[in-house]
Amino acid sequence: MKVKITGVGLYLPPKIETAEDIAPKIGKSAKWIINKSGVKERRVSYIDVDKMGAIAGKEALGKKGIPDLIINASGVPKQTIPDTSTFFQKALGFEGIPSFSIHCTCLSFIVAFNTASSLITSGSYKKILIISSDRGTRGRNFKEPESASLLGDGAAAIVLEPSKNNGNNRLIYYSMNTWPSGAELTEVRGGGTNKHPQDPKTTPADNLFTMDGPGIYKIARKKVYKLMIKALKSTKLNKKDINWIIPHQASGKAVEAYISAGGFPKEKVCSSIKNFGNCVAASLPMTLAMNIKNNNIKRGQNILLIGTGAGLSTACALINY
Amino acid sequence: MKVKITGVGLYLPPKIETAEDIAPKIGKSAKWIINKSGVKERRVSYIDVDKMGAIAGKEALGKKGIPDLIINASGVPKQTIPDTSTFFQKALGFEGIPSFSIHCTCLSFIVAFNTASSLITSGSYKKILIISSDRGTRGRNFKEPESASLLGDGAAAIVLEPSKNNGNNRLIYYSMNTWPSGAELTEVRGGGTNKHPQDPKTTPADNLFTMDGPGIYKIARKKVYKLMIKALKSTKLNKKDINWIIPHQASGKAVEAYISAGGFPKEKVCSSIKNFGNCVAASLPMTLAMNIKNNNIKRGQNILLIGTGAGLSTACALINY
Repeated sequence: MKVKITGVGLYLPPKIETAEDIAPKIGKSAKWIINKSGVKERRVSYIDVDKMGAIAGKEALGKKGIPDLIINASGVPKQTIPDTSTFFQKALGFEGIPSFSIHCTCLSFIVAFNTASSLITSGSYKKILIISSDRGTRGRNFKEPESASLLGDGAAAIVLEPSKNNGNNRLIYYSMNTWPSGAELTEVRGGGTNKHPQDPKTTPADNLFTMDGPGIYKIARKKVYKLMIKALKSTKLNKKDINWIIPHQASGKAVEAYISAGGFPKEKVCSSIKNFGNCVAASLPMTLAMNIKNNNIKRGQNILLIGTGAGLSTACALINY
Repeated sequence: MKVKITGVGLYLPPKIETAEDIAPKIGKSAKWIINKSGVKERRVSYIDVDKMGAIAGKEALGKKGIPDLIINASGVPKQTIPDTSTFFQKALGFEGIPSFSIHCTCLSFIVAFNTASSLITSGSYKKILIISSDRGTRGRNFKEPESASLLGDGAAAIVLEPSKNNGNNRLIYYSMNTWPSGAELTEVRGGGTNKHPQDPKTTPADNLFTMDGPGIYKIARKKVYKLMIKALKSTKLNKKDINWIIPHQASGKAVEAYISAGGFPKEKVCSSIKNFGNCVAASLPMTLAMNIKNNNIKRGQNILLIGTGAGLSTACALINY
């Protein structure tokens, strides 16, 4: 699909929380945290997801005027109703722009990228603003040290437009799968009709993030490896044709696996986990935006966006930037 | 876009709750309820949204085998993470099918219909199961009699496939807009990062549905009228070319407005509000499925799906069934 990323934006909350800062809250040492999660420090936001996302969105739009569609591609909403895209639009100061959310937890950005590409290909829209904004720290359960030490806050945005007739920029390949047998491996059980906030049976832990990290890693490593091989085979590309891997920043170990198990050279696998943690759906576009903004990623290069999300889902999108 | 609805499914919870039943809970008479909301009775589900949706989904699929994509197009999720599409798939007994959610409250189905049509047009998928399932009664605030008397539970599903080369079945026209200046007219402020369930400042009312019915009606009537006129003008169709209007069942008054203000004959405007209430995102596809199942809607007829949702958003999709 002939689409081009014409703008990127990023919001990194100024407040830094180090492994040393959270160590006493979870009853572990800073060394344990860094070793287990790979997260040395993360950002903590005191503004909510809508304002965070709007800052990233404004930067992505730059002087390109107003978008004709806003897609929220975050992991956790600002509130149940209306959906977060409305609040992004409000914070951006727009009125009347079609807005909706695409949700599949940490993979929301990859799925939104493919969906937006289809909406552009079908002629529905021409300038789509995709925003991922998450405050993972709001849902930390300090009684679950491993997941609590992973989560961070951040936001990123892109503008997607049709690529010009003779341009090579495109979505080369996309694939996604969901295995509900792994639904209980990553959950926030509250917030909806199941464990409703007003239900007296809903416990505090139901409203917080829970994750069986080792359980996911065991299943996900194989599934992601197969997904990578399928992507290369389907596109008749070799590993050397891929200039950059932008993985979801699930954990230090998960990002490392693209090198150790995936066989990609370390310098091609983009990581932000050490300084920013796992920012749910925002992690992947944040890492993408950082590497575009610092000129690592150049026009015409092939980028593999890839990762796992609650579901359990896996997805990848191979794009020519 | 050349797409065809090849299956529909419906789930109506067996338990009926009448205006008389809820009258004492909200301190109003049954007559007041029926007069204000137009809802004589609604269904109340004791199974959760995932199981409700899966029953509708199974009926829609019939003997057509497994879908290649499942889209959840509901108003309120089962839980925060993973997204509800995963749980639909689990309840349907499938594994490995790509699944994600599209959310824009009561308009989720219309937006999912357009998005699925684009995904089919771009060649991404060929057999998409769209499910809308909502338990509006779970979020009722009995201290807000007007909105509490509106909400009901239900689910509906469709299967969308490419229409055959010589078939006329298609999405003729689609339009959607969001005006965040109306964001506070319909809200469930809790459930996310804003009024987090664990935040001591979150009140019980924050976790329940609140709606300024008259405020919305005043703005929405004009916006929906303009949307209708634009749809007819853009497609060069007349009102008489539209065989059926399937509105979101916002309230008795809102459905009635398509006749009184919209100028459509009463027999063309499909209503389910009296017996089923406002079932959030499920209302519209439920009304569609009912009228397909009872053979009111026939192949080749033009159907206008239209409505308003929290945001404030308006949307319409004109389809040749």
